[in-house]
Amino acid sequence: MSIESQPSLALPDPVFSQRRYWASEQAISFLMQQAVENRDVISLAAGLVDPASLPVEETEQAVDLLLSDRGRARDALQYGTTAGAEPLREELVRYLARLEGRTADDPGFDTDQLVLTTGSQQFLSLVGEVLFNPDDICLVAAPTYFAFLGVLNGLGARAVPVQADENGMCCQALEATLARIESAGELDRVKLIYVVSDYENPSGISLSPERRREVVEIAQRWSKSHRLYVLEDAAYRELHYDGPKLPSVWSFDADKETVILAMTFSKSYAPGLRVGFGVAPHDLVGPICDRKGNEDFGSANFNQHLLATVLAEGLFDSHAEIVRDSYRAKRDAMLAAADAYFSDLPGVEWVRPHGGLYVWMLLPEQIATGFQSDLFERATRQERVMYVPGELCYGGPADERPTHQMRLSFGVQSAEGIDAGMQRLSRAVRAFL
Amino acid sequence: MSIESQPSLALPDPVFSQRRYWASEQAISFLMQQAVENRDVISLAAGLVDPASLPVEETEQAVDLLLSDRGRARDALQYGTTAGAEPLREELVRYLARLEGRTADDPGFDTDQLVLTTGSQQFLSLVGEVLFNPDDICLVAAPTYFAFLGVLNGLGARAVPVQADENGMCCQALEATLARIESAGELDRVKLIYVVSDYENPSGISLSPERRREVVEIAQRWSKSHRLYVLEDAAYRELHYDGPKLPSVWSFDADKETVILAMTFSKSYAPGLRVGFGVAPHDLVGPICDRKGNEDFGSANFNQHLLATVLAEGLFDSHAEIVRDSYRAKRDAMLAAADAYFSDLPGVEWVRPHGGLYVWMLLPEQIATGFQSDLFERATRQERVMYVPGELCYGGPADERPTHQMRLSFGVQSAEGIDAGMQRLSRAVRAFL
Repeated sequence: MSIESQPSLALPDPVFSQRRYWASEQAISFLMQQAVENRDVISLAAGLVDPASLPVEETEQAVDLLLSDRGRARDALQYGTTAGAEPLREELVRYLARLEGRTADDPGFDTDQLVLTTGSQQFLSLVGEVLFNPDDICLVAAPTYFAFLGVLNGLGARAVPVQADENGMCCQALEATLARIESAGELDRVKLIYVVSDYENPSGISLSPERRREVVEIAQRWSKSHRLYVLEDAAYRELHYDGPKLPSVWSFDADKETVILAMTFSKSYAPGLRVGFGVAPHDLVGPICDRKGNEDFGSANFNQHLLATVLAEGLFDSHAEIVRDSYRAKRDAMLAAADAYFSDLPGVEWVRPHGGLYVWMLLPEQIATGFQSDLFERATRQERVMYVPGELCYGGPADERPTHQMRLSFGVQSAEGIDAGMQRLSRAVRAFL
Repeated sequence: MSIESQPSLALPDPVFSQRRYWASEQAISFLMQQAVENRDVISLAAGLVDPASLPVEETEQAVDLLLSDRGRARDALQYGTTAGAEPLREELVRYLARLEGRTADDPGFDTDQLVLTTGSQQFLSLVGEVLFNPDDICLVAAPTYFAFLGVLNGLGARAVPVQADENGMCCQALEATLARIESAGELDRVKLIYVVSDYENPSGISLSPERRREVVEIAQRWSKSHRLYVLEDAAYRELHYDGPKLPSVWSFDADKETVILAMTFSKSYAPGLRVGFGVAPHDLVGPICDRKGNEDFGSANFNQHLLATVLAEGLFDSHAEIVRDSYRAKRDAMLAAADAYFSDLPGVEWVRPHGGLYVWMLLPEQIATGFQSDLFERATRQERVMYVPGELCYGGPADERPTHQMRLSFGVQSAEGIDAGMQRLSRAVRAFL
């Protein structure tokens, strides 16, 4: 067979889509792969969750219940709909109503505004797909969640950073940025303001209640020629350890036609199920589902039925409490280790978060933390500890990004691992002071 | 609060991305929704699977095994990697090697060419994402799988139909189409030839072995300035009921650098798990995973571990046999019903498939079958039976598509339901003769 003996070298290279280049080399894939492959390195980098508190018993119990009812079992193993399984949608109305201090009879939104996705990442990606043409603009905090920057890059959209402080994205800076964009004649390019409202990944900071209200007002005021949406990423909302519980940004949007809410059970229950969801303004639901229809027809129906059972049986609430207790102790361990190993280092500062999975650390400006930096090399190769370089978490031009920051996760390590990792990291940093 | 009293009508409309419009109103979402909502209509339309043969016991057994090993349970409930869980990747090498008549030691491809996805639909979508710019061209059979036409539409790509007969896509017509495109100066736009190799959805036809070889040769010969790929959608490969088992198109690609293979466990095991996969030429794996990283970081890890257990424990083989037996009987029921209720109707013809889930039926040319046709109205409203209009399964200009064909699925109904549905449908057709 002549064809079988033909060497592959004879075939010319492929020509890819523009999107292939926009999507190339996402940091999240690199970091997740690193975390899986380098099990001897203490990872303070990847946002994996605490393995010890994964809900094995709860999932066993829920699967037994689900599969022992043959009718429900078959529903769960069959195709579902693109927008997601009815039993979970019903549970989510109750779940959200309770989180929002409302009742299931008057949850403040319509059930058909719910879209169930493969983690909240898919929901974020779908929102991006239906809103952004290449060169369109999304306003993001500085710093912000790097995987969402990846989504924007993958669409050829522009992430324009807005200054943030200890209360999150600054509303004055947000207005000033919008005014600047309007002056440049590009206001029609601005589609979205993206905020991680609670214990932000990466900074650990929560948007203050006043600013939550103000962000909604700004979006509505600047909806001049077209609707400007706010995307509230509330992935960490359930991971609250102390301090006040804040009302969602979404709660300040009375009509629920400005704020898009994204949430997930990956952190509060189990990431391996990949069940996330969003509540979208009515105009967005159809477009998001159409796009999702193209991408996968719908996420795993079995997992949605399973999580509906977990919620209905009260297994979620008790487990979320276990998860919070576990992470609270880990956060305390990381802050104690920071005090122990970093407090004598001049110019090193860090945020003390009230929830979430991350401690954000600032080094003296001259110490670069990037993948190509001497510190990253020394940390990973010599001290065997890994972190996320802060510069990955900034939109805008590369040469304007701070390069001396680190995101440290206390999610996956034990208290001992956190202590050891922080000690190793402090040794690495010390070498450059 | 002034903002809360502001009516939503005061806000201007959103401006969507171009993609939003390309993706609007996918037939698959419409049909799946119809099938779920109209439970009193006998659906010969949606490609749902046989509920009676869904693997409830097998899944119970596999989940028990998986979760009773605490280490594996935690691995399954944790995040996985974008490309998919190692245990399933290992099982898939053995699985594919056996299907291909090879050994796991010499499977003819590298493990790292595997990408695990949310059903094979996501794999098809990702291949489209990394290859097609707007206006790029994909060659497809006439008719072809309508959900893949949706993928192409959603990307703004063009589906150019190639004539097909009882042996599948005609290779002479394929070459003639390529020559015509080259003459028009658009050969650089052609990225892919898409074929559903076994018991094609919708036609039930399998590509003949000679043409399988020839399609690979044509793709390689026409890879003039860039690589022209073949995407083999082998979703129905396991649903073989009689006649010869044919070697895959992929098997004729010795280097595995021209043919992209897409498969799924949705038909042969359970769609509710949404586990599909593809084997891609090396140059495509990175781009596909980068794009998938943006879209969801990876499909449900739990489901991949679960299916690895199903395969490892031999639960898949025994279940696939049950599934084949069940569908063989249903196919026979549909063909018997076609003989009983349609054979006296002049000008009505149908394909007798050797596998898969579909019988393709041709009516006299003057009887239109589309969503807006009198026949569709009469069938769904009066006779309470639903089918897929054949015109959804054609690429190219709308006014050049045949409008007198129907895709009839024997997947979801019982033998009695099939008989009743076919009788109802024949009554509807008879009214227009």
